Amino acid sequence: MVMGSIPEEVDIAVIGGGVGGYVAAIRASQLGKSVTLIEKNKLGGHCLNYACIPSKTLIHIADLFYNAQHSGEFGITGTLAIDPKKMHEWRISVSKKLEDGVAFLCKSNQIEVAKAEAVFLSSKELQLTDGRNLEFGKAIIATGSEPVPLSGFEFGGNIIDYKAALSLDFIPKSMVIIGAGYVAVETATLYAKLGAKVHIIARSGILSHFDPEATAIVASRMESLGIEVHKNVEPASHTEKSVTLNSGQIISADVIVIAIGLYPHTKGLGLENTKVILDGKGFINTDSSMRTADSNILAIGDVAGEPMLAHKAIRQGVVAGETAAGKLSGFDNVVIPSVIFSDPEIAIAGRISGEGILTKKFPLTAIGRAVALNRTKGFIKIAYNQDKIVEGIEIVSDDANSMIAEAALAIEMGATLEDIADTIHPHPTYSEGIQESAEAALGRPLHFFYGREKEGN
Amino acid sequence: MVMGSIPEEVDIAVIGGGVGGYVAAIRASQLGKSVTLIEKNKLGGHCLNYACIPSKTLIHIADLFYNAQHSGEFGITGTLAIDPKKMHEWRISVSKKLEDGVAFLCKSNQIEVAKAEAVFLSSKELQLTDGRNLEFGKAIIATGSEPVPLSGFEFGGNIIDYKAALSLDFIPKSMVIIGAGYVAVETATLYAKLGAKVHIIARSGILSHFDPEATAIVASRMESLGIEVHKNVEPASHTEKSVTLNSGQIISADVIVIAIGLYPHTKGLGLENTKVILDGKGFINTDSSMRTADSNILAIGDVAGEPMLAHKAIRQGVVAGETAAGKLSGFDNVVIPSVIFSDPEIAIAGRISGEGILTKKFPLTAIGRAVALNRTKGFIKIAYNQDKIVEGIEIVSDDANSMIAEAALAIEMGATLEDIADTIHPHPTYSEGIQESAEAALGRPLHFFYGREKEGN
Repeated sequence: MVMGSIPEEVDIAVIGGGVGGYVAAIRASQLGKSVTLIEKNKLGGHCLNYACIPSKTLIHIADLFYNAQHSGEFGITGTLAIDPKKMHEWRISVSKKLEDGVAFLCKSNQIEVAKAEAVFLSSKELQLTDGRNLEFGKAIIATGSEPVPLSGFEFGGNIIDYKAALSLDFIPKSMVIIGAGYVAVETATLYAKLGAKVHIIARSGILSHFDPEATAIVASRMESLGIEVHKNVEPASHTEKSVTLNSGQIISADVIVIAIGLYPHTKGLGLENTKVILDGKGFINTDSSMRTADSNILAIGDVAGEPMLAHKAIRQGVVAGETAAGKLSGFDNVVIPSVIFSDPEIAIAGRISGEGILTKKFPLTAIGRAVALNRTKGFIKIAYNQDKIVEGIEIVSDDANSMIAEAALAIEMGATLEDIADTIHPHPTYSEGIQESAEAALGRPLHFFYGREKEGN
Repeated sequence: MVMGSIPEEVDIAVIGGGVGGYVAAIRASQLGKSVTLIEKNKLGGHCLNYACIPSKTLIHIADLFYNAQHSGEFGITGTLAIDPKKMHEWRISVSKKLEDGVAFLCKSNQIEVAKAEAVFLSSKELQLTDGRNLEFGKAIIATGSEPVPLSGFEFGGNIIDYKAALSLDFIPKSMVIIGAGYVAVETATLYAKLGAKVHIIARSGILSHFDPEATAIVASRMESLGIEVHKNVEPASHTEKSVTLNSGQIISADVIVIAIGLYPHTKGLGLENTKVILDGKGFINTDSSMRTADSNILAIGDVAGEPMLAHKAIRQGVVAGETAAGKLSGFDNVVIPSVIFSDPEIAIAGRISGEGILTKKFPLTAIGRAVALNRTKGFIKIAYNQDKIVEGIEIVSDDANSMIAEAALAIEMGATLEDIADTIHPHPTYSEGIQESAEAALGRPLHFFYGREKEGN
């Protein structure tokens, strides 16, 4: 037996140092508990090191690089060069800075960070790969998710997952992306802007779970960027330099990116030694306080169910940290906003269709700022019920990522159309479109003429 | 006597076709009234043709031009050229498109547009310079404002107002801006980014009416752009190519921009033939329904008082249109947000200082998106009272113009710190800073460590 076999006691053990896990640790520590945060790889997890942050870093660089060279109408001319190694270094430095920040937050909040993997021995004991045994009051599982592999296209060589696609230190001449969800769309768009020839292999079409009125705008933009979307096909086989589709078509590919989804990461955690229960899709079942079927164990983030979004994990981390520390807390959010960093961005909060939902769409062509910046392809759609309570807002526009927060707050607070219509939104901004959509829904549109008024138009 | 001396009748006459005026006309027409909109120059007024829209167009172009050439850290290299004539044409085409849009809105809403000046003959009659007489039920004055002239620096030659500064078809080698408010700061920054050597002549410092913590960041950025701010001085005299300060210093200047403020435009309106009353500063006195001391006449926008902001005029236009049409309506807004399109932007909604106000500041250095985009100079400051009701929010950041709408809605709806802290803000966005500032104010900061908690820090 190793030294660690004498159990150490801790109030709360958090397994996984991603955005959900470290937030849970901080919150529990603020409430006076002793906390150990166990992370096998890097603090900040996928989001910070391999997913959200790297992708938004590269999207910003690609946008700047592309837009500056395609703004002849503004009088800007010239050619720029991109050094992918330097871009790669910047991306790494960003993640490193943020990772160091998380380490500092943990230290400041007196959280012990264990660089290890953890296995449940029971409902109150963890075995760590650093040799230690941890006896916990409560454990919070925040182990996240992993990319779903594709049979016949095993990872290795030129077949990579979306995380590796964001870690390239070169711009591939040709890239084939298998999958057509938001990760595929974001990755395709950024590499196309950096000069790659990108193909998307889509079972149906791109972003098939989203509003067709929104995805049509993004699809048209992708086409104008030279991205080829192959619809209603499946990949059949591949070589080191190509993919063959079930249609027989052969596409050359320096890099093949598999982006067909994520699965919850529970393997090897020893959950069989606890009372934790998984659902049919492999997610850990929890209640609204993030408690599992095992009274000592909580779970948050990707491993605890859809949607697998960083900001959902952060909010659940707060709730779990409070619950584990003995404070009454619940995930009672009405709205989990989502943002696709496509071109233009699509952001959604709440419901924009379904029974009892009326909608009104306001086009960017009627927004001064959009006209000024030559970015008029998009709209704001507001959804409301018969009592004129706002049920959802969809924004297809630059800055949608910044603007959707207003929509989330509005819905959480039970805002009416009047609340939004009568709030002064500054001019000239895209946010005026949110106000205008509410005014239009009330039958008093200002900067757009809907003709003879048709409700729900 | 000309034909027009036989009075024509109209329910509502609106004098001035700027953003306040045409919005009032649209709203009144929607409520079934006959409306004549009288504009002597261009529909859309200053905002659309000479101020807000042109400035934001040029700021965007200057940002793109400058940023793309100063992003070596991202791996982007190269030199761009700017064709100021082409830029100028784009700016004109934007205003033209929007002006045409307003004309279409007026036509669609069955508003008669008269290209003329108007003079009140009485409390119910207007003489138009197109020869017609208009007998109105209600009149709405929306004549806006004009740049304040500077004695000894009369407009003409190389001495221009801020509107002319946005209409140049060349990039001046050197530009002296007299004044240091938001117009001066925005204009200086954009021309510096396009390559001009810019001097600001400031009576005290720049943006002296704003939060010093915010203006310090903007001032530092302006310095790094090579803008020279001459503080605590006044201009004494000028030649065709220079300005002499009262300190004796001589500054060369291809162009001298006077940007020392705006005054309400009431001259020549024949107000002496009405019961309209002006205040000591020349603004028209109104009540909250935008009614003047003359029961037939309303006033909105810049001519009706501070703050002289387009979105205030728009909201007052809605209220005046409704009031004039006989509908009960009032300008009961708690918040008129304001945005300075400086670098970084400063946006404010509500009060951020004063009696009974506590504040908490959250730095952009702790926001993932800001780190990724190398834009960490800035903060979000939340102000609240002892009941934890949000009183104000200040944002010093890129995208502040898009984000401040959430703050305005929050304050209008009486949001608490908890309302904002518990609303999920998407990751990774700047808007997380609004949520984090609320969490910090509640004593439960996540991504920043404030040390031993000091309230009001």
